[in-house]
Amino acid sequence: MTQPDTHVVILGGGFAGLAAARGLAGSGVRITLVDRENHHLFQPLLYQVATAGLSAPDIAYPIRSIFQNRPDVTVFLGEATSVDLAQRRVSGPQGSLTYDYLVLATGGVTSYFGHPEWEPFAPGLKTIGDAQRIRRHVLSAFERAEITPDTSERKKLMTLVVVGGGPTGVELAGALAELTRHVLVNDFRHIDPELARIVLLDRAERLLTMYPPDLSENARATLEAMGVEVRLKTGVVNVQQGRVDTGTEVIEAENILWAAGVGASPLTATLGVELDRAGRVKVGPDLSVPGHPEVFAIGDLAAVTDVDGQLVPGIAPAAMQMGSHVARIIREDLDSSKSEKKPRSAFDYLDKGSMATIGRSAAVFKAGPVKLTGFLAWTAWLFVHLLFLVGFRNKAVVLVQWAWNYVTYGRGARLIVRPGQE
Amino acid sequence: MTQPDTHVVILGGGFAGLAAARGLAGSGVRITLVDRENHHLFQPLLYQVATAGLSAPDIAYPIRSIFQNRPDVTVFLGEATSVDLAQRRVSGPQGSLTYDYLVLATGGVTSYFGHPEWEPFAPGLKTIGDAQRIRRHVLSAFERAEITPDTSERKKLMTLVVVGGGPTGVELAGALAELTRHVLVNDFRHIDPELARIVLLDRAERLLTMYPPDLSENARATLEAMGVEVRLKTGVVNVQQGRVDTGTEVIEAENILWAAGVGASPLTATLGVELDRAGRVKVGPDLSVPGHPEVFAIGDLAAVTDVDGQLVPGIAPAAMQMGSHVARIIREDLDSSKSEKKPRSAFDYLDKGSMATIGRSAAVFKAGPVKLTGFLAWTAWLFVHLLFLVGFRNKAVVLVQWAWNYVTYGRGARLIVRPGQE
Repeated sequence: MTQPDTHVVILGGGFAGLAAARGLAGSGVRITLVDRENHHLFQPLLYQVATAGLSAPDIAYPIRSIFQNRPDVTVFLGEATSVDLAQRRVSGPQGSLTYDYLVLATGGVTSYFGHPEWEPFAPGLKTIGDAQRIRRHVLSAFERAEITPDTSERKKLMTLVVVGGGPTGVELAGALAELTRHVLVNDFRHIDPELARIVLLDRAERLLTMYPPDLSENARATLEAMGVEVRLKTGVVNVQQGRVDTGTEVIEAENILWAAGVGASPLTATLGVELDRAGRVKVGPDLSVPGHPEVFAIGDLAAVTDVDGQLVPGIAPAAMQMGSHVARIIREDLDSSKSEKKPRSAFDYLDKGSMATIGRSAAVFKAGPVKLTGFLAWTAWLFVHLLFLVGFRNKAVVLVQWAWNYVTYGRGARLIVRPGQE
Repeated sequence: MTQPDTHVVILGGGFAGLAAARGLAGSGVRITLVDRENHHLFQPLLYQVATAGLSAPDIAYPIRSIFQNRPDVTVFLGEATSVDLAQRRVSGPQGSLTYDYLVLATGGVTSYFGHPEWEPFAPGLKTIGDAQRIRRHVLSAFERAEITPDTSERKKLMTLVVVGGGPTGVELAGALAELTRHVLVNDFRHIDPELARIVLLDRAERLLTMYPPDLSENARATLEAMGVEVRLKTGVVNVQQGRVDTGTEVIEAENILWAAGVGASPLTATLGVELDRAGRVKVGPDLSVPGHPEVFAIGDLAAVTDVDGQLVPGIAPAAMQMGSHVARIIREDLDSSKSEKKPRSAFDYLDKGSMATIGRSAAVFKAGPVKLTGFLAWTAWLFVHLLFLVGFRNKAVVLVQWAWNYVTYGRGARLIVRPGQE
């Protein structure tokens, strides 16, 4: 029935790529999964690593371990930098691979809206390396504030600006407020971390625009009660080292974190197919790349409208559903190749709800008509996140840490690690 | 009785420095503790971070958290680079501090026996940054071996050399053998990690020379049974990128780890007092620097012979005892300052035993006449290490991870993290 020599190349070991590889278990195809990191990352909790709530291994799991018992899956640590659709070949610095089916799932990158020169001064949050760098820089600023005799320097060191009021920006601002108000508060003798200024900027009229207005309002009120300055209708016209210019004001801040834009991985530009403004591939209803039924784009790389006309959001459950859908289509292709071709089914997104956490016991949650806020939403958030975490160890450790953090406001992970020289 | 304006400066937040600060609790002195890292490190388990058995936060704890409830202690993140004994001042890039008492506890550095040029090719293991760099480099070598078509390149990538057969070298070699034989074994499709070559070199006639000969022999036999090539009476005459020259042979190895020498922190050279060959301060019986009763050198920084004529080993329990001793002397000084001076007591080392672990269920342990090997020694080792770990969270997490690792040979911590650009 199946062709044992069919080679499926999956680029990216995120939620989408893993779901595709899992969905192909036992199908008889040979799978090569390529990722430039050696670990799958539980990206929804990455902001916790940046704000010293969790440590890297709690939310990252080696991809090789995930496929230890899947001899049909070969994992390569490497980067694909171009795709040759005509030759059915992907290439990168480590070599090239030919494929029968290709699944593009390399995810998103931080986008600076045409200002890549801002990146060094306002880091984004996409990898464990990004998160550790932000943590190091935030914690070091407080250490320097404790030593400096200069008042205006101290003020700058204790100011943090988060650009972007989507889920990541809201989560970062909330976690930074808790870090300074509850965790660092007893650590210093010369400064008062409670006086740290946390500013959340967004050019929209409200936070979390993908949620209903009353949830946006709840998020704003909750953040302000936690001590965050929320500035809406406020864009950014320039970013320099330690300075954000909003057009009407210049904010001096040692730490500027960028949570404003997500673009598709630059790999899409090498395909020669139509992309949307964010660089995402405009896929067909079956998630294939137009004109290439053997190539699929899924996850944050793809601009997808599902069978009901619903715009599919860039969240983990959607990415996983896309991965499973593609695996099903490849299986059906192989099964029907000896008989008549059946038309491929269109992707149908099942909205299981989405949520953003705001702080220690507050979140907003929506699933269809259901809306939750506050502690109830937070509990739902915690439960769903733990449920999704890959690997037993991570679940157990995250649970222990969460419980401990919850009771003590402790932050066992707040290490400043100076990277070893290469 | 006490003088509230007495200022004690402690340089170093390792076992020795922490014990000194703890011993001075409630004494009425003002304490400033300076460390260039923001965390206390449980150094005996550092090799586990380098070999992906534990993650950094499991063995490191923020110093500020330790002294959160000690308003008499101020912590500075910084480095003291010189001491002016005459002016009673320590200085560094961040500024200078004057002291009434000074406790030098900045520990040891990796020593290359007059060959600092070998350092880039054979990293030592002293900080979390060192350990993460080694882990990244070791795991990346296997990833590259999986891809390369070149047989001799693959062999080199899968060869690891550990230089030095003391406790750190034995622990590293044993942990690397387990990592390759048990943990990585099912992860790859093109290479067999079991074929990785692990070579342990030492110029002495036996491993662990500070232990009785039968324990050294046990360690050698255990390591060889685990697949480690133990080469005794084998020195190193040159190290280059990926090459170790022993004088009779050149070993090509992508990873060369240096566990051969420990020298004192370079700070001692600025004191202008007599040092031993390793750069350690030759302290008096009370652990003070000769001619300066207000200055103490403790831990790996000091060459100490105790009241019984016993050479005090460079291990954590000894460092902690020295810290407590110094705290006691400072208290007695302050108490007796208004009455007649009592002579200071001499440091008396209490040997509670020392041990080195060889692998998953083997170790060697000695305490006076008591000698243990194998599983019994390993159990003792585990118990003692968990007992000593600072902070509840670390204890709980390390225990969970140990239990989980023990049952599954899992290595949840084997992440390759590319450090964020600065």
